[in-house]
Amino acid sequence: MSTEQRRILVIGIGAGDPDHVTLGAVKAIGRADVFFIVGKGPDKASLTDLRHRMIEEHAQGPYRVVEVEDPSRERRAMDRGEYAVAVQDWRGRRGELFERLMREEMTEGETGAFLVWGDPSLYDSTLGILADIGARDSIRPQVEVFPGITSVSTLAARHCIPLNQVGRPVHITPARRLSDVAQNDDGDIVVMLDAHESFTQVEGDDVWIYWGAYLGTPDELLVAGPVREVADRIKQLRAQARERHGWIMDIYLLRLVGMQTSGDAGSQT
Amino acid sequence: MSTEQRRILVIGIGAGDPDHVTLGAVKAIGRADVFFIVGKGPDKASLTDLRHRMIEEHAQGPYRVVEVEDPSRERRAMDRGEYAVAVQDWRGRRGELFERLMREEMTEGETGAFLVWGDPSLYDSTLGILADIGARDSIRPQVEVFPGITSVSTLAARHCIPLNQVGRPVHITPARRLSDVAQNDDGDIVVMLDAHESFTQVEGDDVWIYWGAYLGTPDELLVAGPVREVADRIKQLRAQARERHGWIMDIYLLRLVGMQTSGDAGSQT
Ligand SMILES: C[S@@+](CC[C@H](N)C(=O)[O-])C[C@H]1O[C@@H](n2cnc3c(N)ncnc32)[C@H](O)[C@@H]1O
Ligand SMILES: C[S@@+](CC[C@H](N)C(=O)[O-])C[C@H]1O[C@@H](n2cnc3c(N)ncnc32)[C@H](O)[C@@H]1O
Repeated sequence: MSTEQRRILVIGIGAGDPDHVTLGAVKAIGRADVFFIVGKGPDKASLTDLRHRMIEEHAQGPYRVVEVEDPSRERRAMDRGEYAVAVQDWRGRRGELFERLMREEMTEGETGAFLVWGDPSLYDSTLGILADIGARDSIRPQVEVFPGITSVSTLAARHCIPLNQVGRPVHITPARRLSDVAQNDDGDIVVMLDAHESFTQVEGDDVWIYWGAYLGTPDELLVAGPVREVADRIKQLRAQARERHGWIMDIYLLRLVGMQTSGDAGSQT
Repeated sequence: MSTEQRRILVIGIGAGDPDHVTLGAVKAIGRADVFFIVGKGPDKASLTDLRHRMIEEHAQGPYRVVEVEDPSRERRAMDRGEYAVAVQDWRGRRGELFERLMREEMTEGETGAFLVWGDPSLYDSTLGILADIGARDSIRPQVEVFPGITSVSTLAARHCIPLNQVGRPVHITPARRLSDVAQNDDGDIVVMLDAHESFTQVEGDDVWIYWGAYLGTPDELLVAGPVREVADRIKQLRAQARERHGWIMDIYLLRLVGMQTSGDAGSQT
């Protein structure tokens, strides 16, 4: 099989608010001939709804939408090694799917687009998978990336807070790695992908949490306060929301509130 | 003096590319009556140029632009304690300036706007200063935040790479804190605010750097490769650019390239 090129736009669309799309992303959507939408199952339809809405509002001229099911992925509790294997396996199957889509659903002269939740650089497999495909050399994607507003920036914006304290680092981590990241230094920690309410494990009177769910959507929920005081309220809101929506999408910042920072901790949230 | 409210929009405009502004930011710019632009001196005019351009392109109806000089800030080498004091002092003076602008240059019924470089949540003092002012209770800013594309997302987009390796954390740090953050765990590290080419301190054959300067602008520079191999090239580019522009604005990702990640390290940059 000879190597064929494919022009692929990877477009960040923001993490929930349709107004968070950039002018560049709007123009990129206008250039695409084919949109690939990888569905996450009926529960998470709102994740694909935003993509459909972006396409309807911003696509130009004739275009096609190709919608497929995401390969299934093991979700049980796993240790770090098992987790890496499970993700690797799922990425492999996703790669085969993407390769088939690019080969069969578009031609060399066309422009394909993946609309990515939030920003393509943060906990999203699209770029890695396209790079793997390029390395295999049967289809070579020519990738152009359009950055998007992350759920991290959205969280900070909705709470009117900076992510970092003056001069300090910020850490972003999947919840399963929180224990490795916590207490490394005095930086604040953003926790994503939390299936187990890891904030309930956080100790100390001086840790604040800024929590948000379904950010940027009409279902948005926000809670801020000392973890010790607000953890139960968050657990209750999560349980209710999960019941209503069938799934939950949340993120939070953990901040060590020392002497220096009372200013931005209280007055605006 | 009685407490007066002020409606203030804090609007992220992206880190250099005018197309990185969001639709929400465009609408917010359209709502403002007064724009406050805090200048950084003639050298860094391009930082205010983007703000002027955003206002000219997106403001609606009658509006005013109030441009002032940023309070000066000590820039000599300092230890962590001195640095905190210098920043605190500068923030205090900036706070007085902002308070005066809100009191004298706009009325209670009007809407004021600060256009912030990148995203307001990342290494930017605007939100912290407005919170301090609110806490003092003479002018109370009612703040609404519009997130922006960060220089971090822009860096990743221009290199077509994810920031994180699968399942791992990402750390964002000012260069002066790099030594604290490095080697804490297997996460990748984004370094900002580097006045001293700290990447030259990085050791090991397995560390890659993805570097970018003036990202999103016509002067953009990109270099990627093993630090050991490309550090000299980056130093040379920095020296040339500094000569040409008088100042430099750069950011980089440091990635430990282990067994798992050859896929996204090579083929796309
Ligand atoms: C697979 S990651 C994708 C992140 C995305 N690329 C971004 O830039 O935000 C999914 C995680 O992002 C966070 N997230 C994404 N959108 C969110 C939203 N609207 N509200 C709260 N959390 C969100 C949650 O922590 C969720 O588990
Ligand atoms: C005071 S911080 C502000 C960051 C900004 N709020 C953001 O969201 O990107 C300034 C630092 O951001 C980085 N930076 C901002 N814009 C950049 C650009 N266009 N190219 C490279 N680095 C940039 C540099 O590391 C610079 O020292």
